[in-house]
Amino acid sequence: MTAVKKIAVLTSGGDSQGMNAAVRAVVRSGLYFGLEVYGVQRGYHGLLNDDIFQMDLRSVGDIIHRGGTVLQSARCKEFRTLEGQQKGAQILRDRGIDGLIVIGGDGSYQGANKLSQQGIKTMGLPGTIDNDISFTDYTIGFDTAVSVVVDAINKLRDTMSSHERSSIVEVMGRHCGDIALHAGLASGAETILVPEVEFNMDEVAERMKQNFAHGKRHSIIIVAEGVGKGEDVAAELVKRFPTNDPRVTVLGHIQRGGTPTAFDRNLASRLGDFAVRQLIEGLSDKACGIIKGELVATDINTVVNTKKPFNMDLYELAIRLSQ
Amino acid sequence: MTAVKKIAVLTSGGDSQGMNAAVRAVVRSGLYFGLEVYGVQRGYHGLLNDDIFQMDLRSVGDIIHRGGTVLQSARCKEFRTLEGQQKGAQILRDRGIDGLIVIGGDGSYQGANKLSQQGIKTMGLPGTIDNDISFTDYTIGFDTAVSVVVDAINKLRDTMSSHERSSIVEVMGRHCGDIALHAGLASGAETILVPEVEFNMDEVAERMKQNFAHGKRHSIIIVAEGVGKGEDVAAELVKRFPTNDPRVTVLGHIQRGGTPTAFDRNLASRLGDFAVRQLIEGLSDKACGIIKGELVATDINTVVNTKKPFNMDLYELAIRLSQ
Amino acid sequence: MTAVKKIAVLTSGGDSQGMNAAVRAVVRSGLYFGLEVYGVQRGYHGLLNDDIFQMDLRSVGDIIHRGGTVLQSARCKEFRTLEGQQKGAQILRDRGIDGLIVIGGDGSYQGANKLSQQGIKTMGLPGTIDNDISFTDYTIGFDTAVSVVVDAINKLRDTMSSHERSSIVEVMGRHCGDIALHAGLASGAETILVPEVEFNMDEVAERMKQNFAHGKRHSIIIVAEGVGKGEDVAAELVKRFPTNDPRVTVLGHIQRGGTPTAFDRNLASRLGDFAVRQLIEGLSDKACGIIKGELVATDINTVVNTKKPFNMDLYELAIRLSQ
Amino acid sequence: MTAVKKIAVLTSGGDSQGMNAAVRAVVRSGLYFGLEVYGVQRGYHGLLNDDIFQMDLRSVGDIIHRGGTVLQSARCKEFRTLEGQQKGAQILRDRGIDGLIVIGGDGSYQGANKLSQQGIKTMGLPGTIDNDISFTDYTIGFDTAVSVVVDAINKLRDTMSSHERSSIVEVMGRHCGDIALHAGLASGAETILVPEVEFNMDEVAERMKQNFAHGKRHSIIIVAEGVGKGEDVAAELVKRFPTNDPRVTVLGHIQRGGTPTAFDRNLASRLGDFAVRQLIEGLSDKACGIIKGELVATDINTVVNTKKPFNMDLYELAIRLSQ
Repeated sequence: MTAVKKIAVLTSGGDSQGMNAAVRAVVRSGLYFGLEVYGVQRGYHGLLNDDIFQMDLRSVGDIIHRGGTVLQSARCKEFRTLEGQQKGAQILRDRGIDGLIVIGGDGSYQGANKLSQQGIKTMGLPGTIDNDISFTDYTIGFDTAVSVVVDAINKLRDTMSSHERSSIVEVMGRHCGDIALHAGLASGAETILVPEVEFNMDEVAERMKQNFAHGKRHSIIIVAEGVGKGEDVAAELVKRFPTNDPRVTVLGHIQRGGTPTAFDRNLASRLGDFAVRQLIEGLSDKACGIIKGELVATDINTVVNTKKPFNMDLYELAIRLSQ
Repeated sequence: MTAVKKIAVLTSGGDSQGMNAAVRAVVRSGLYFGLEVYGVQRGYHGLLNDDIFQMDLRSVGDIIHRGGTVLQSARCKEFRTLEGQQKGAQILRDRGIDGLIVIGGDGSYQGANKLSQQGIKTMGLPGTIDNDISFTDYTIGFDTAVSVVVDAINKLRDTMSSHERSSIVEVMGRHCGDIALHAGLASGAETILVPEVEFNMDEVAERMKQNFAHGKRHSIIIVAEGVGKGEDVAAELVKRFPTNDPRVTVLGHIQRGGTPTAFDRNLASRLGDFAVRQLIEGLSDKACGIIKGELVATDINTVVNTKKPFNMDLYELAIRLSQ
Repeated sequence: MTAVKKIAVLTSGGDSQGMNAAVRAVVRSGLYFGLEVYGVQRGYHGLLNDDIFQMDLRSVGDIIHRGGTVLQSARCKEFRTLEGQQKGAQILRDRGIDGLIVIGGDGSYQGANKLSQQGIKTMGLPGTIDNDISFTDYTIGFDTAVSVVVDAINKLRDTMSSHERSSIVEVMGRHCGDIALHAGLASGAETILVPEVEFNMDEVAERMKQNFAHGKRHSIIIVAEGVGKGEDVAAELVKRFPTNDPRVTVLGHIQRGGTPTAFDRNLASRLGDFAVRQLIEGLSDKACGIIKGELVATDINTVVNTKKPFNMDLYELAIRLSQ
Repeated sequence: MTAVKKIAVLTSGGDSQGMNAAVRAVVRSGLYFGLEVYGVQRGYHGLLNDDIFQMDLRSVGDIIHRGGTVLQSARCKEFRTLEGQQKGAQILRDRGIDGLIVIGGDGSYQGANKLSQQGIKTMGLPGTIDNDISFTDYTIGFDTAVSVVVDAINKLRDTMSSHERSSIVEVMGRHCGDIALHAGLASGAETILVPEVEFNMDEVAERMKQNFAHGKRHSIIIVAEGVGKGEDVAAELVKRFPTNDPRVTVLGHIQRGGTPTAFDRNLASRLGDFAVRQLIEGLSDKACGIIKGELVATDINTVVNTKKPFNMDLYELAIRLSQ
């Protein structure tokens, strides 16, 4: 006896690489355990329009390696109202769907929480490149986004060495510096500016001067967008180090694209399967995540109300190694 | 009997992928034909500082696949003066170097021309990503730069399809729209804005509206920097198509980096070898290039004084296919 | 007035990267010029089964960057008979289709030639990674295949340098060494074994010994499959140079895959459009190609009966530079 | 007061991606904490030849992104003898080096253990693509090797879908199926053959038949080399499913190459720094690893005498999702 018989899956908010692998895992795991599985197009917007279709093994064939989301995503104001939430729950009930898996970020989680209050069993999966969701060490898409940044910096490195120059790379992360931190450590960036750590531009410029004086041939500064525009950092730097002529790169939405890494595909596959099994066992209103290698389910309310702690040890390591 | 006995090679101006493959070809071909080969560090700046060293087979080992230039590049004001040019020629003569191969763009070519007036035999190789040098169908680095742009657009495509959005990609090309054109054709970009072709923003917006109405799920606009900032194009578009929410990506110096494509490596290898053979045969003051598959040498003066024609046929093909 | 009103397109034989870009160009160019365009599934096999469907702008949306062929490919014995060819022509006539564009290699071209004898106007496009079709400098897919090989060798280079080892890479090319030649030149391979050039294993081993003695840290041998198995080359080498412990890599069908390069996409786009325009102008039984940068149409019979000449100049350059 | 004053680092055994990032971390962390740091060329072989040089910040500049190992690696029979081990320890003592960090696999660890018996403080770091070292969830290079395999399968996928074919991919792993497992899960492989799990070829063939019958268009079998040759698996499959025409790809040493992933670079950076700190605190004869996200040091003897358990949960998940 399973606690649910028919489940649906939707993707919501900004897309991230690996969402398709998660959708695939939800569908195939659901079918394996004897459930009917439905897809909702365009997130909560599609839910309110009853844009729902049954999925089988072939609906998720050949998508594991694709970026973006085959279910598409969209914003939905109506769903922020109680009426919208009641309507969404009713549409699911009318179809006999008793469980819903939502793949997205904090906003998407809140929607799942509201639906669970309307009697639908829900699970959230962390689908966002920013790694800004608490109670999971990694979000789906984060590893790929970091890879995209690191690959871009590999390219910059060639051209910078040829000209003895510095490079400022603006990456995503409004409230969470994890992309900047992990990409910065992996690239040997000299300076990593994140919203979680205060910095002093005089010290940044001074350190850079000394490094060039000691024979360094190029210098990389990574700036999380939560800290400010790359162009503004460049202007502040030039004030203090006028002979330096930094180049600014804004990676933008490229960070959301590309085929997901093996890491993200496998994380997504594990989490998608886990969410299905949690629903089958009768749980609801949980956010699924991975903590120290273990899959865990945490109350959505706890997750959305807890700010993810910043990894200061890793930050200090990055600084220590980038002298 | 060869017309030269000792030759040198330098890279100048902005670096481009494949410069190292060209340096390697110059060195190995020179040695093969019995010449001594020297490297000049940091372009004309290094020349004036006598920053010159002898090269052997191993000095160019393991560089064919590297972006940037192992000889480095730099700007040099002094070399724009007659005194600078005379000094540069004297430094080469003092070392017994009678031939110089310069890899770079228009400015680098002019330097080679000035040196030839001072009695040094010179050859120019087209090393720039912009493809803005006349009398060659391709410059060294252009194919790689186009590949970098196309790869970035592949990534944007995933995320755009998920949100039914348009994307504006600003690419290099101040006076030459070739990167925009070739990357646009290869990406199926709906709109390609280049300095060589006038455009009407009303028509661009109108076409985009119609395409979305006909079921297109995303739309790419490529803007060569010579046309304007990507952000400005976005602002103009939103005025005319307010429900569209375009995302702007500025690729910047990433376009100069990355391992060179096989095409660029082979072009560079052929041109480097060709330049050496031209010097051996006694030619001087020529720019080497490839036209319709054939290696050719053209007077540098002719090359720097001729604007490269824009390929309107290819532009029209891109438009025809991107409906 | 156009010479054709309804055209169809099929892919046949081994697939190659860029076939989809060619299909897209045929469809969009055909529609642009006012034709109806049809797709045939699974090559001549599908033709004989009337597996034909009308295509519109959206049928070729989002395929320009995909490897393989959305029209699929298959072998078909029946089509080698006169009855099969008559049946195929009749099926097309019954649907009012008067022109057919065939994308593939020599075998596919012969089919097009036979259909033209049955009154169907045909055009062939060179879709094969091997670059073994005469009257075109490049086939669609060749540049991508070379890129895949070069990328693999980049990876081998890292690990070989760590161990002072040699590496034997077997690549595709039964009768044509072009993949081996172009990838070998681009990788700085020490030895390139192709069906078009005889070689002496004693000399290969001797040269390698000398190069290691002179400080080379790794050595790459590229073997076109037409020459023999990589494993056999390794065995012969070890007989003559026992302290060398070569590693063999067989790239196999990876060479057929991957997203097409910008070069291949643009070549495919130009050729697809060109083939449509040739049909419109009333030509038939022609193979389209690119020679010295110009699009050309040559009688299919001439093409299939002419062996493509090997580029000895390029081969000698590769040897000259790999000392 | 630190327990060591001068430390050395060497790489040994097969190289893996990320070894350079680990060397860099050892050097920079050592210098940060006030130690002198030395590099040993060519593993234990170089140690016995006193091939040792002092390293500074610049010796590890621009290597974080390089595959292979700048310290090179080699086999060394002499070091397997007690005399060799005594000689190695003496050479280190003569230079005043009291700590040694060894990056490699099981064999390399045993060497470190022997040296610690001769009074040298040692730390082992897991540098091998195979992920076959116990007491660490991940080895340095494993994530990159999996990525290389997954990238190759992405390419095969294109061409397979075009022909309705199956593909057999032989990957590394003599005693450990982890590359096969992780790459198989990430690629949606239908069948994963590893040394740790028995299989029945009749069932494999039967399952494949059914999947093709149910509309699957291609099928991937991943074979760890410990199970057998890809060619042999193909022969067995064809006996049971003659209409299937599988293609075999042997990835070979490509799996050891390529720029390390961000994951591997960061793992290597953390472990390299950790090993230095362990030596400073006076520990010795330990293998460093990461278990459930935490860095740990385990007695080398325990590590080399414990077989790594296979992750059956993950294997079952891969099967469950690949129906």
